[in-house]
Amino acid sequence: MSDPFVIIGGDAAGLSAASKLKREDPDRETIVLERGKWVSYAHCGMPYYVKGDIGSITKLLSLSPEAISERNIDLRRGHEVTAVDPDARTVRVRTETDQYTLPYGDLLIATGAHAISDPIEGADLEGAFTMHGMDAAAALRAFLTPPEEIDPETVDDEYVDRDRVETYANREPPESVAVIGGGYVGIEMVEAFQAHDLDVHLFHKYDGVLMPFGEAVGDRVNETLREHGVRLHLETEVHEIVGDERVEGVIADDGRTSVDVALVGIGIQPNTEIVEETDIECGDSGAIATDEFGRTNREHVYAAGDCAEMRHAVTGEPAWVPLGLTANRAGRAIGQTVAGDPTPVGDIVGTAAVKAFEMECARTGTIDLERARDAGFDPVRETVTASSRSGYYPGAAETTVTLVADRGTGRLLGGTIVGSDRAAIRIDTLATAIEGGMTVGEMERLDLAYAPPFSPVWDPVLVAAKVLNGSLDD
Amino acid sequence: MSDPFVIIGGDAAGLSAASKLKREDPDRETIVLERGKWVSYAHCGMPYYVKGDIGSITKLLSLSPEAISERNIDLRRGHEVTAVDPDARTVRVRTETDQYTLPYGDLLIATGAHAISDPIEGADLEGAFTMHGMDAAAALRAFLTPPEEIDPETVDDEYVDRDRVETYANREPPESVAVIGGGYVGIEMVEAFQAHDLDVHLFHKYDGVLMPFGEAVGDRVNETLREHGVRLHLETEVHEIVGDERVEGVIADDGRTSVDVALVGIGIQPNTEIVEETDIECGDSGAIATDEFGRTNREHVYAAGDCAEMRHAVTGEPAWVPLGLTANRAGRAIGQTVAGDPTPVGDIVGTAAVKAFEMECARTGTIDLERARDAGFDPVRETVTASSRSGYYPGAAETTVTLVADRGTGRLLGGTIVGSDRAAIRIDTLATAIEGGMTVGEMERLDLAYAPPFSPVWDPVLVAAKVLNGSLDD
Repeated sequence: MSDPFVIIGGDAAGLSAASKLKREDPDRETIVLERGKWVSYAHCGMPYYVKGDIGSITKLLSLSPEAISERNIDLRRGHEVTAVDPDARTVRVRTETDQYTLPYGDLLIATGAHAISDPIEGADLEGAFTMHGMDAAAALRAFLTPPEEIDPETVDDEYVDRDRVETYANREPPESVAVIGGGYVGIEMVEAFQAHDLDVHLFHKYDGVLMPFGEAVGDRVNETLREHGVRLHLETEVHEIVGDERVEGVIADDGRTSVDVALVGIGIQPNTEIVEETDIECGDSGAIATDEFGRTNREHVYAAGDCAEMRHAVTGEPAWVPLGLTANRAGRAIGQTVAGDPTPVGDIVGTAAVKAFEMECARTGTIDLERARDAGFDPVRETVTASSRSGYYPGAAETTVTLVADRGTGRLLGGTIVGSDRAAIRIDTLATAIEGGMTVGEMERLDLAYAPPFSPVWDPVLVAAKVLNGSLDD
Repeated sequence: MSDPFVIIGGDAAGLSAASKLKREDPDRETIVLERGKWVSYAHCGMPYYVKGDIGSITKLLSLSPEAISERNIDLRRGHEVTAVDPDARTVRVRTETDQYTLPYGDLLIATGAHAISDPIEGADLEGAFTMHGMDAAAALRAFLTPPEEIDPETVDDEYVDRDRVETYANREPPESVAVIGGGYVGIEMVEAFQAHDLDVHLFHKYDGVLMPFGEAVGDRVNETLREHGVRLHLETEVHEIVGDERVEGVIADDGRTSVDVALVGIGIQPNTEIVEETDIECGDSGAIATDEFGRTNREHVYAAGDCAEMRHAVTGEPAWVPLGLTANRAGRAIGQTVAGDPTPVGDIVGTAAVKAFEMECARTGTIDLERARDAGFDPVRETVTASSRSGYYPGAAETTVTLVADRGTGRLLGGTIVGSDRAAIRIDTLATAIEGGMTVGEMERLDLAYAPPFSPVWDPVLVAAKVLNGSLDD
């Protein structure tokens, strides 16, 4: 009986699992089925490629198909899995020209997620984009770049959708854009469009951008966006992208705005179609439910990455927080488990960071008070703004820290940080404290680094812990 | 009976304690006895003042004497304590013109430390400096600045030693310097002298600079210093500073080097003279022994700051690590304890950071293998160099992380980080993990932030944890 490790999806989770297994057990056959052409690419780098910070799109590849094959991984691009049969332990595969059934010993579902644009009409017009896929990134960069400055390598790249790129490459660059959605992708793309001198309109349904980062971050980012000349349409829903073949404008709560490009960044959903016809279970989030080893409810079937849930260390409940490290880490652990060394995928605390022009934003843990209450906590929140360095040292910047703790136990539940000087990386201190189960009282006494060029005597994180610890007794 | 809270020393620990007590118990009389004129100043900022990054020396004051008196603290500058009598609960005070005995209810010894230069002859010549005191900083800055560019405010400042400043202010700036000692102060001062275009010779007794930061940091800093044209005299002891009244050169193992200035930064010692005639105990380090509340062995007598030991969280043993946050934190806790709310001063893990030109260096915990063995551990160490950001993102820099863990338990004992991109602030993640009692296995699975501009998928800290965790089983 053939017992290959079959992996559906050739991105972070899938290739981390494949690589780890081949290191631990080089003789085990490992097959990666990827329906597209691109593998192992850095989603999070795409906005910076579009912006122009990164020269060639192939720099976003963590591993080339050649490097993958050197690892003796059987990578099959253009192979789409259409069905999974956990009883027979097989998957059904379709290629452009063929179909076949592949038996597996162990199966990893690492199908990722897709950008949603459904609620908005006109998202299929030329000039309307989502930022979820390398071909979209390549086409958009080509569109934004004056024809004479297009790097021929991008157009000639062997993986890129040349037709799509060429459609845009020969046009005069657009002058205005509607970015629809003020989440990560929206905020990063605002910066990318601005770098190409477009007139940027940001439409956001709610009053604060970057909602998962909380109000204190949203407020400072709103301010930063305005300072950079971004036209903010807050609490403004876009209903339709309009145009005759090509995008000509958007219709929103505040009327019609003429633009040449529309970028839809209103969210993503896990790719779970292939489990719908099986008894492999999804959680409340809609993503595939997994246990501490990344196993689904069916034996020998694992799930990881943007299509899977993970356990949240604060609530102890499953959560769907599709992020790059989670995918890599879970994939790697599953590879090791499949190799015979059971390895937990680890918990998540939803640590994330995003750049909004010079403003560095980060969040970790549970910062939403309602969610904290649902998880059985009595949350108390404090926000402080303190200097990133000794006040007398050049470059000191106001850093805003929000912390949430449980009143009864003092346990740190979550936090956010925003500022222009080394703000985002400070979130790792909070993430570590949360995963270590620390109280804010313990945090207040942490022996953190002090050196005038990097941090004041009382780091903003310590100031926030001190203030919140004081509030716990109120 | 009068029961004032009497504090010996008007700097970080002393004034933190005084301020905290006055907030908690505004009616309690609080007297701060400071033998000098300067109070509450930022030692760590002095090299940057000398360098020229900070305009006026008074910017280094955290609190002005006026602000201190607004807090109803009875600050007495120029009042030196010459004796302590814990039986009578009094201190003996001397001023320029007078002597008196002052009874106390509670006493805090916060006398700080002093720079040592004893083993080197000629350290009293004109042009020889230590960097431990504002008057030295003011004089040195005046010396380095061309007479026509001297800021008159510095000379006129009400606290500054004008005679000393004027001695140097009217001279032509020096052209070369011998920095003696490659510790924090030496390294920071090298950068300061370089900024004034001096020819800089750094003499260091051992082969690696910044010894408390370990070899991996020392090696990269050596490289950086050489790149900046600093002349390194490693494993070279200086025996004498020579000159006729003024510094003309230094005599070291490698012969005579002609220089116009000598900066001695070979270490500091706790100021413990006033307890020598009492039964107040010092620890093995020579600093005053304290318990978890900062109390000495005598009732109602506390010690904090650079003159006192603290408990080290890794070894559980007393340690003398004179740093700014420790002094502030312990002072504040003692103020609260004296106010009737017993508050632990907290443990230390010796977290420290220092800038060497563009290189950011940091350390925390126990990194010396011999010390770790003495504390009963079986230490394993690994050093990795990894990128500070996604490799494709501009500004990514090689970041070197060393971690030390105990083989048996996997517990993280210490670590160092060096690199040019947000390297130092990452040490707080390690400090938090150490104080949280984490193993490197737990660290490897930490959910840290990933965003291309700030950090790669696997932060250097995670890479190091992964490698070290793998080595624990070897």
